[in-house]
Amino acid sequence: MPEIRQNLATKEWVIISTERAKRPEEFKQEKIKKDIPEKSDKCPFCPGNEDKTPYETFVIKDEKGKWKIRSIPNKYPALVSEGTLERVNDGIKRCVSGVGICEVIIESPIHNTTIPLMPEYDVEQILQAYKNRYLCVSKDSRIKLIIIFKNHGELAGASIEHPHSQIIGSPVVPFHVRYRLEEAMRYYDETGECVFCKMLKEELKAKERIVVETGSFVSFVPYAALSPFHIWILPRRHMSSFSEINDLELNDLAKNLKTTLAKLYFGLDNPDYNYVIRSSPVDDIENEYYHWYVAIVPKVIRTAGFEMGSGMSINTAYPEESAKFLRSITTR
Amino acid sequence: MPEIRQNLATKEWVIISTERAKRPEEFKQEKIKKDIPEKSDKCPFCPGNEDKTPYETFVIKDEKGKWKIRSIPNKYPALVSEGTLERVNDGIKRCVSGVGICEVIIESPIHNTTIPLMPEYDVEQILQAYKNRYLCVSKDSRIKLIIIFKNHGELAGASIEHPHSQIIGSPVVPFHVRYRLEEAMRYYDETGECVFCKMLKEELKAKERIVVETGSFVSFVPYAALSPFHIWILPRRHMSSFSEINDLELNDLAKNLKTTLAKLYFGLDNPDYNYVIRSSPVDDIENEYYHWYVAIVPKVIRTAGFEMGSGMSINTAYPEESAKFLRSITTR
Repeated sequence: MPEIRQNLATKEWVIISTERAKRPEEFKQEKIKKDIPEKSDKCPFCPGNEDKTPYETFVIKDEKGKWKIRSIPNKYPALVSEGTLERVNDGIKRCVSGVGICEVIIESPIHNTTIPLMPEYDVEQILQAYKNRYLCVSKDSRIKLIIIFKNHGELAGASIEHPHSQIIGSPVVPFHVRYRLEEAMRYYDETGECVFCKMLKEELKAKERIVVETGSFVSFVPYAALSPFHIWILPRRHMSSFSEINDLELNDLAKNLKTTLAKLYFGLDNPDYNYVIRSSPVDDIENEYYHWYVAIVPKVIRTAGFEMGSGMSINTAYPEESAKFLRSITTR
Repeated sequence: MPEIRQNLATKEWVIISTERAKRPEEFKQEKIKKDIPEKSDKCPFCPGNEDKTPYETFVIKDEKGKWKIRSIPNKYPALVSEGTLERVNDGIKRCVSGVGICEVIIESPIHNTTIPLMPEYDVEQILQAYKNRYLCVSKDSRIKLIIIFKNHGELAGASIEHPHSQIIGSPVVPFHVRYRLEEAMRYYDETGECVFCKMLKEELKAKERIVVETGSFVSFVPYAALSPFHIWILPRRHMSSFSEINDLELNDLAKNLKTTLAKLYFGLDNPDYNYVIRSSPVDDIENEYYHWYVAIVPKVIRTAGFEMGSGMSINTAYPEESAKFLRSITTR
């Protein structure tokens, strides 16, 4: 019989489907293998084409003075950086002016690389860039929430194949984020404990859903994973915002993120995926109830009317089997 | 400048993007036109292949005694019909047994038809089948919420092209639904009014987002539509559950649904879409605060990490322009 599992922190329900269950190998991405070149003249993110992108907001260079990582304003931003925050409340018309920060972090000068194939130190530098941009964007008083995310591959919504991530500063805290904070606060008020710390403790005890353990981080397939190979990477130390990460932890996250993504890369033939770093709103980066984390969602299934109507997901892979499979994948 | 709009009822935020905005015609579905036959020997839903599907739970026949509409249990159900509802609450392990009802409603014996092309009376009979199945499923005491939905086309998750809808009886009220009910209840407590009735009244006054008005129903692109051509069809009369619809209203909904879908069909070259009928939970079908409706979402854009991380949508079409475009489409 299928199980309907609930995530203790987010309160989301998921049907772990037995009738439609597949083996881990069956989720391998069937995509046409393209021979992606190391450098593309047409790519706006490749070295030599810097004039095709806006000015740099941040750069990390190598010992020869060439850039390794660049951060630039998004040329087609969802939110614009200039303007004041105005609010309208007029009957059903409720709106806020679309001001905000949208930046792109170009992760490497190499067109055809990806985090699992990069040296660990380079991954650490990407994370340093994330932290720098987070801290800088958070100084803008219009910004209430900062989201760092990555779209890898076409199914995940990437329009440019050159490795890059994005950072968005939003002038509102969306409802979706607000209710998670409220649930975490309620759990804290009832138990005196952070619900994410609790989950981490129990996942470490159960062991069966753990993917990669490093000094400061743990990646695992949550008990109520919403889709096959849905992974959370949680810091062992309680922190509400990614901006609170220290240098040692940054180094360790590079190790954990690279290894976790490499297990997906080698285990499922480089699947398309999204990842998101979820933090507390910028005005509340130090609290006892919310815990920041990285959520990784490989795009190996398609959702339909059922999910839209119910807000419940259908996961056709057992979280325990997904985790076991990923543990078995060697990444070198 | 983009606008960030909020839906008064669901509290969802959406960025109405000016930087990436497209004209309505640009959302036309670019798909390979397939010559779909009127009948397919391989299709389990075509006449003659009734032995490939489980027993019928409901059937409507024509004057010659041949079936026009059949309802059958889903052969690959997400939830199974046999078993008792058990609940586990053990630390992070929270789950409910995956019992529920999953039925498929085959809408026509004709393999290559679709609601916009059907006679109005046939659409009315589909809606009658919906109501019959809703009432029947609601008698099962394990069922807490009933969702009727349709996946049209591959991008919308349809695996069989023969026209069909689905009905799911869920043993839990998912969080996603619960919070909408709570918001509606809060609005009612504050104002003494159903928030959906309020929206309908204001949309009718504003006129600019209306798509189709019939005697008992109004279809419109909501002020804070989450995606291009996102449409709501609301009954003018306050009702919390689809099961409360009367015969006159059923007849009128057939007219409205057919015309609204025909405007998408002819205006956007038969786009893939999902629709969902959202009702109150079965134990609370008559209340003052929640209003059932049909939500239609054409699959004309792809979502990515931004939406996943923020829970905000990006709509690249102005709701007012989408509605104006649809109003201009003649459906005959």
